[in-house]
Amino acid sequence: MSRPQRASRHTVRRLNSALVLDAIAGSPGVSRAAIAAQTGLTKVTVSVLVEQLIAADLVAEGDVEARSGPGRRGTALHLSPSGPHGLGVEIGVDRVGTCLVDLAGRVCARWTRSEDNRRLSPETVLSRVADAVRAALARGIEVGGVGVAVPGLVSTDGTVRTAPNLGWREVDVRDGLSSRIGVPVRVGNEANMSALAELWHGYGASDFVHVSGEFGIGAGLVVDGELFRGVGGFGGELGHLSVDPRGPGCPCGSRGCLEQAAGPVELVRRSGARDLADLLSRLSARDRVATAAVHAAARWLGVALADAVNLLNIPTVVLGGIYARLFPRLRDPLMAELGRRVVSARWTPVRVVASTVGADAAMRGAATEAVRTILEDPDTYLTSTLRPRESSARTP
Amino acid sequence: MSRPQRASRHTVRRLNSALVLDAIAGSPGVSRAAIAAQTGLTKVTVSVLVEQLIAADLVAEGDVEARSGPGRRGTALHLSPSGPHGLGVEIGVDRVGTCLVDLAGRVCARWTRSEDNRRLSPETVLSRVADAVRAALARGIEVGGVGVAVPGLVSTDGTVRTAPNLGWREVDVRDGLSSRIGVPVRVGNEANMSALAELWHGYGASDFVHVSGEFGIGAGLVVDGELFRGVGGFGGELGHLSVDPRGPGCPCGSRGCLEQAAGPVELVRRSGARDLADLLSRLSARDRVATAAVHAAARWLGVALADAVNLLNIPTVVLGGIYARLFPRLRDPLMAELGRRVVSARWTPVRVVASTVGADAAMRGAATEAVRTILEDPDTYLTSTLRPRESSARTP
Repeated sequence: MSRPQRASRHTVRRLNSALVLDAIAGSPGVSRAAIAAQTGLTKVTVSVLVEQLIAADLVAEGDVEARSGPGRRGTALHLSPSGPHGLGVEIGVDRVGTCLVDLAGRVCARWTRSEDNRRLSPETVLSRVADAVRAALARGIEVGGVGVAVPGLVSTDGTVRTAPNLGWREVDVRDGLSSRIGVPVRVGNEANMSALAELWHGYGASDFVHVSGEFGIGAGLVVDGELFRGVGGFGGELGHLSVDPRGPGCPCGSRGCLEQAAGPVELVRRSGARDLADLLSRLSARDRVATAAVHAAARWLGVALADAVNLLNIPTVVLGGIYARLFPRLRDPLMAELGRRVVSARWTPVRVVASTVGADAAMRGAATEAVRTILEDPDTYLTSTLRPRESSARTP
Repeated sequence: MSRPQRASRHTVRRLNSALVLDAIAGSPGVSRAAIAAQTGLTKVTVSVLVEQLIAADLVAEGDVEARSGPGRRGTALHLSPSGPHGLGVEIGVDRVGTCLVDLAGRVCARWTRSEDNRRLSPETVLSRVADAVRAALARGIEVGGVGVAVPGLVSTDGTVRTAPNLGWREVDVRDGLSSRIGVPVRVGNEANMSALAELWHGYGASDFVHVSGEFGIGAGLVVDGELFRGVGGFGGELGHLSVDPRGPGCPCGSRGCLEQAAGPVELVRRSGARDLADLLSRLSARDRVATAAVHAAARWLGVALADAVNLLNIPTVVLGGIYARLFPRLRDPLMAELGRRVVSARWTPVRVVASTVGADAAMRGAATEAVRTILEDPDTYLTSTLRPRESSARTP
């Protein structure tokens, strides 16, 4: 039984700030009166909270509300486009990328650089990432939070425990980066960040399994509209589900992992292709080897995803990464395998869709998570050191 | 982002009733003053709520509080032993059982009857279950809720969609039973009910995977102190994780399911034993076939549980059912397999323990869930039709 707790006055104000901001984020252009009606707060309370949010540049006033019907028109409120932005960083195997999103999650700027990060020391990579972040911070846009996505097991303290495809072990990305850029940093697993991007900018169902795959295979589990991280933050290791216990060894130490059977690197190799573009053109040319390799990968994906659906009864799968690009070729054999193996398929049918978020999913998720953190708890942001500019404007 | 909601006055009273009851359940013998201090509610509010709970026979007064230190001694409060009980029912493959638990979850009575339910029609089984429930209801103990555990996929509406080991498909257990006994019934999967029993009466960690196995294999996933049910309530189908895609066919329609490789029925058969007791005595006699069969089953369990831990990062496994009895023989090969296959094992070490709840876990979980429902929302119970006796005692 979850223990209910009595709310303190401070908690109530915090919740009410978040409530008002949530109403504005959910209905851009909404008026103070409409927020009061929607939230059940008094108009006076709403007005006081809105003034604080405007002073902090989290909310901006627009035109007088456009609506028909009786009553005075209110001023339209929306999230401030000049308010704090989220800076997302992706440390990929073959690139570093950054993107800036505004409070509404719109991408304002993005930057990527191809780089084989496996050949560089973590120190060098973090130093280059810091350069990229400083360049983004120097644009004069207020940044309210920095999120970093890394393809590996990331502890809740921001340490990358292991990132096999990068060759990293025990790299303290959070401190290594925040000490270089002087701004607090949150670090997460790229599959989790991609799933959050899918939740906020893509498919948007409340419960789904998002599969990402650029080099390895990862998954982000979204449950009831939130990321499911597990006890230590290491959940979603779909790539290391065992699909064939007699299969080949995996660098993780196990045997027969999905990543060895259907991972992007293996799939391209078994197709006889050089890279994804080459694989796609071979598929278009009806190349037999490439087609067979993709069908086999689809079946292995189906075995592992059936395990996930049988365990979780989350019957919606969103394919990202290269699997989104290959979706038309993967769909039929994947669905056939899921149909055979998911015991509840008859009552909660399995649905598989391709992600529409694209290759920037991880950094976009990391950037949006940074602004969502502000939106969910504006009071903490109002008192944080990240925003010296508005500190004098707060009402007591 | 979870939308915060402003609490109405009715909701506040409901929450406060639950808060007071939770304080009493968590600290039997607590005084009104101590509840006020613990919850932050005023003493007057606590007193009013306690009187309502006493009038409803949810709470009883005991002796004057025993404690040292200054101040007036308060009267000790505890959950009423004569208050509403929970009636749990297990419809197993080879037995029907019922048990009664009081508000504190203590078992007051239990009854089981061996019966090969596979040979009977669902109608006949439900009719016999109804007889057993009526016998329990006739004891003169107030019953606040009835919970039924069935080894199959159970919809949230109480329909058993499929229970392969019983041979049932589309059996409306909830209505079939409540129409016979005249009392509302909740129906759940036996693996889920067993996991709840483990949560409340056994291992008690906030996050664990509980494995049950009497005929088939099921799992209950406990996340953050609550059962994880999945979108349709069909989660936890560990027995149908594919451990060997080239393995034998399974009645579920899939191939290579864990249940076929390591399920109780298969394990006893491969051991050359007649039943679990025979298997245990063969193991004691160091029988080679039996020992090899148990070791093989342990490795297959390890493959499937590693999948679960890799996906969920819930590194605590509680073995119930026959696996609890076999635990000393299973432990080493199972731990070896998990150590090899769980990628996060180094940072969140996997722990496997044997359940101590015993063979009544499913019906005990179902019974306790019925009383927990009352404890978590006493206000709804106070106004429910199940308890006509106290309706005149309520304060407005």
